[in-house]
Amino acid sequence: MKLSIVLSTQPASFSALAYRGHWEENIGKIKSLGYDGVELAVRDPKLLDVPSLKSLLTEQSLIVPAIGTGQAFGEEGLSFTHAEVEIRRKAIERVKSHIELACDLGAAIIIGLVRGKRGAGVDADRAEQWLIEALRESASQNKAVKLAIEPINRYETDLINTVVSGLNLVERIQMENIGLLLDTFHMNIEEPSLTASIASSKDRLFHFHIADSNRWYPGAGHTDFRPIVDVLDQIGYRGFLSAEILPFPDPDTAARKTIAYMRTLAT
Amino acid sequence: MKLSIVLSTQPASFSALAYRGHWEENIGKIKSLGYDGVELAVRDPKLLDVPSLKSLLTEQSLIVPAIGTGQAFGEEGLSFTHAEVEIRRKAIERVKSHIELACDLGAAIIIGLVRGKRGAGVDADRAEQWLIEALRESASQNKAVKLAIEPINRYETDLINTVVSGLNLVERIQMENIGLLLDTFHMNIEEPSLTASIASSKDRLFHFHIADSNRWYPGAGHTDFRPIVDVLDQIGYRGFLSAEILPFPDPDTAARKTIAYMRTLAT
Repeated sequence: MKLSIVLSTQPASFSALAYRGHWEENIGKIKSLGYDGVELAVRDPKLLDVPSLKSLLTEQSLIVPAIGTGQAFGEEGLSFTHAEVEIRRKAIERVKSHIELACDLGAAIIIGLVRGKRGAGVDADRAEQWLIEALRESASQNKAVKLAIEPINRYETDLINTVVSGLNLVERIQMENIGLLLDTFHMNIEEPSLTASIASSKDRLFHFHIADSNRWYPGAGHTDFRPIVDVLDQIGYRGFLSAEILPFPDPDTAARKTIAYMRTLAT
Repeated sequence: MKLSIVLSTQPASFSALAYRGHWEENIGKIKSLGYDGVELAVRDPKLLDVPSLKSLLTEQSLIVPAIGTGQAFGEEGLSFTHAEVEIRRKAIERVKSHIELACDLGAAIIIGLVRGKRGAGVDADRAEQWLIEALRESASQNKAVKLAIEPINRYETDLINTVVSGLNLVERIQMENIGLLLDTFHMNIEEPSLTASIASSKDRLFHFHIADSNRWYPGAGHTDFRPIVDVLDQIGYRGFLSAEILPFPDPDTAARKTIAYMRTLAT
């Protein structure tokens, strides 16, 4: 079992991040806690000192399994389905710059809230069409970089809430480097059965987020992670389990509790 | 096990209502499906033809376990914690009119979203103080009518998300007719353990909402209702289990599936 935890490389308002900012210090801390990797939440790659980041990651032998792009939406309002064409274009160009960084780091790209929400005046079919076009263009830029679409619960977006709708989208696009990221917190709200949904994603499962039912560290809620770890093994998932959790009671305790709990489930 | 289902007496935008409007027709349907009661969602009691409603309920031998007040917030923006004193006053007067209706029908009053959300410029302590004052004034109007505060998940309000915070509030107010309404959909998101939270509410549990983890009818998600029904029995809860569910795949199917599933758990 390979474990990682989300680190925001810039300060951000999104609350489900154990670690934000001070990445030089936090990467060392994440390593010392025993994590194998660090998932990076990056608003804009051009704000990052990539050579320093890479040398620190090498020094610490930490892998970057995935790069989150949601801050481009959360902080700047960029999305693949915005009513204005200029904003859609900016969102695509931004994700392409994330893809360059991902290629450099050997990471996958997360398509979370950067896909947007259906706003007033944008109907469902049009939003889906824009989303498909943006994903095709982004995925075509570099076929070695995987794009992982994350089904997100109904309260945060109305575009792709469930694993079924995510798989339908993947099916419609038909590109080898487009698949899914599943997140146990969102699945707890949306999926009739977490294990059945994970099983249905098969080889389209590119990345996996762990958080308990209340978005605290695993073990703090009622999600049963044992059958989840088992079904991930059964479908041959060999990627990371990445903690996207609230920093409660504090970031270090949350990170420590996550790793201690998940290690008890290692197969 | 006494089962009821939510019926909105006026058309409303809130989506977790199996039945909306056409209450004369729907009350007959709810009875014919085998329900023992009907929970009424009422925006403003003065819009209701109460004598006709009462005679229909008597004719159908249906009980009204509780009256929901959230539409006063959802449709009109009235809340106990609004920054403007006139709106807080209107909200209290509205709930007092709900309490008169509740007394007439032998129902409890639900304090859901009418408590409001902490808005810009209203700090947490002040909002809580206004909430306490509004609850005290409302509960004092008629001590025979129970007020049930519903912990609601983080996405819908930031005031009272968990059973612990609900019990703390009840404890601070110290009135016999103030207690809690617990809802399995919200608990699935907020509570570390649904059964432990239910057990902790003891004799302060005034009303209970059932919906599966995805807010569909019980049986459509992953919530395990068997231990829930058992713990309700253990704490001596003798009230209704009331379905506040999404009308999927359609209202009648949702209502039918709910009753069929819950009857299999009857103790």
